[in-house]
Amino acid sequence: MSSLVIVGTVAFDAIETPFGKTDKILGGAATYIGLAASQFGVDGAIVSVVGGDFPQEYIDLLSNHGMDVSGLEVVEEGKTFFWSGKYRNDMNSRDTLVTELNVLADFNPNVPSDYRDAEVVMLGNLHPLVQLSVIDQMNNPKLVVLDTMNFWMDNTLEELLQVIAKVDVITINDEEARQLTGEYSLVVAAQKIMAMGPKYVVIKKGEHGALLFHKDDVFFAPALPLEEVFDPTGAGDTFAGGFSGYLAKTGDYSYENMKTAIIYGSALASFCVEKFGAERMIDLPKKEVHQRIQQFKSLTQFDIQLT
Amino acid sequence: MSSLVIVGTVAFDAIETPFGKTDKILGGAATYIGLAASQFGVDGAIVSVVGGDFPQEYIDLLSNHGMDVSGLEVVEEGKTFFWSGKYRNDMNSRDTLVTELNVLADFNPNVPSDYRDAEVVMLGNLHPLVQLSVIDQMNNPKLVVLDTMNFWMDNTLEELLQVIAKVDVITINDEEARQLTGEYSLVVAAQKIMAMGPKYVVIKKGEHGALLFHKDDVFFAPALPLEEVFDPTGAGDTFAGGFSGYLAKTGDYSYENMKTAIIYGSALASFCVEKFGAERMIDLPKKEVHQRIQQFKSLTQFDIQLT
Repeated sequence: MSSLVIVGTVAFDAIETPFGKTDKILGGAATYIGLAASQFGVDGAIVSVVGGDFPQEYIDLLSNHGMDVSGLEVVEEGKTFFWSGKYRNDMNSRDTLVTELNVLADFNPNVPSDYRDAEVVMLGNLHPLVQLSVIDQMNNPKLVVLDTMNFWMDNTLEELLQVIAKVDVITINDEEARQLTGEYSLVVAAQKIMAMGPKYVVIKKGEHGALLFHKDDVFFAPALPLEEVFDPTGAGDTFAGGFSGYLAKTGDYSYENMKTAIIYGSALASFCVEKFGAERMIDLPKKEVHQRIQQFKSLTQFDIQLT
Repeated sequence: MSSLVIVGTVAFDAIETPFGKTDKILGGAATYIGLAASQFGVDGAIVSVVGGDFPQEYIDLLSNHGMDVSGLEVVEEGKTFFWSGKYRNDMNSRDTLVTELNVLADFNPNVPSDYRDAEVVMLGNLHPLVQLSVIDQMNNPKLVVLDTMNFWMDNTLEELLQVIAKVDVITINDEEARQLTGEYSLVVAAQKIMAMGPKYVVIKKGEHGALLFHKDDVFFAPALPLEEVFDPTGAGDTFAGGFSGYLAKTGDYSYENMKTAIIYGSALASFCVEKFGAERMIDLPKKEVHQRIQQFKSLTQFDIQLT
């Protein structure tokens, strides 16, 4: 098993959905990625920053899930990144109510020396310059995976393109892929993104599943049809954590293995949306994950005899 | 092989897309269904009506694809149903410019006596009372499949519910499933529709694929990711024709076989959108269909070892 460096936010979230609302709860891209990757028992390190207001119990929780937290800087006099959002009735769109960068504003990431030889780097959603700095600190990782979002395309496109040029895999949602390339067709958009650097492009379509592109090949993983989506927060990060965690666990970075990694990412994301925030991910039994993987198999596998 | 009765419009369409526009060309639900079903060499009969303006060469075309046209009434003094629509730039929404019912306004369907013992009935998009009349003329068919659309929910809901109660399978798109049930979740919507009668519910999600529900089981068939959708007209009918045609061909109406039928429906629909109207479906070599089925396999099939 290879080790995994995870960079991303560790944060407070306050979430409102049609089903209810929360006070400040544990959130952040690196949190969701770490919890998802912990399903595979990988040796992971979280590189991020929090303020003095961040509870020790949350840090312990990450630690107890096998995450090294020596790269999780605590700025005692600062406040933790805070995001608050409200989902609309269809759960597919949300309004951001509050974004307080706080300690993230001046964050210089520091990858612990023990993890600079890690094979897999998962760059969760964060400022592209932070992502670049993490890449620069690594010694020849075998796989660098980037997750990003439209905010960085709008505000720091040049830096984002520098990151994109340096990664092996990018995960991005459908609207963002269209924004980044100016192409409506996801097939054409994926080809254009591959021309920017990544050998693999994963386009996330939320409830409509995810597509993996590599050269002229394409693989599709559905989302599990759910009776109810309780809270979509963190689903994309959880997907990225399942994907990168599975690859780090297996040490196999082939296209074939990435198909399986995407199924795992989708399966874990389908749990994430069942409860508020990261609640469902904290004590998720492996047995339930395996049952859900079987559901994905019966959802998509068919025997065919050509007529 | 069992035979197949197809009811639906046979029409003139005039289509405008971002790629160009057509004059009046061959269209209609029964046309697309028949051309798709002809891929399986099934013995099909089209039950519909056209006016005296309908070219004999179009009738011959259906006939040459193995469709019995003795139930295709020609009202010499009438005009053929005409629909005209314009697709928006995203190809996912369209505006209807013209709908002239013409001979459809007073249509009383007549199933040829040779086909009243057919095992499979495909009720394509048409007035629910016409669909009901066709059901009544059949002698114990083994499988009745219904395709419908929001227009009938808006205008003839009561009659539509009578049809729904009598069919085995309904194919419907996602927004229509939500409209019919008042449920946003497609899983919940499908359960509610099954409670109305059909044992199988197929929810079509366009470029996002299709879901097959039966009891507590669900199967998902993706749409093939395409570089370009040239003209979506008839894709849903082609899907229905591939689905019902494959089932008639095999005579196997099990859930397992319906999975394969849905893959065939999706594969044929992926051809339909490549050219204007039904053009791509008219001389579609079986070899190309088989190649595309293989693409669907590599799109969704994965090997997984549980970690």
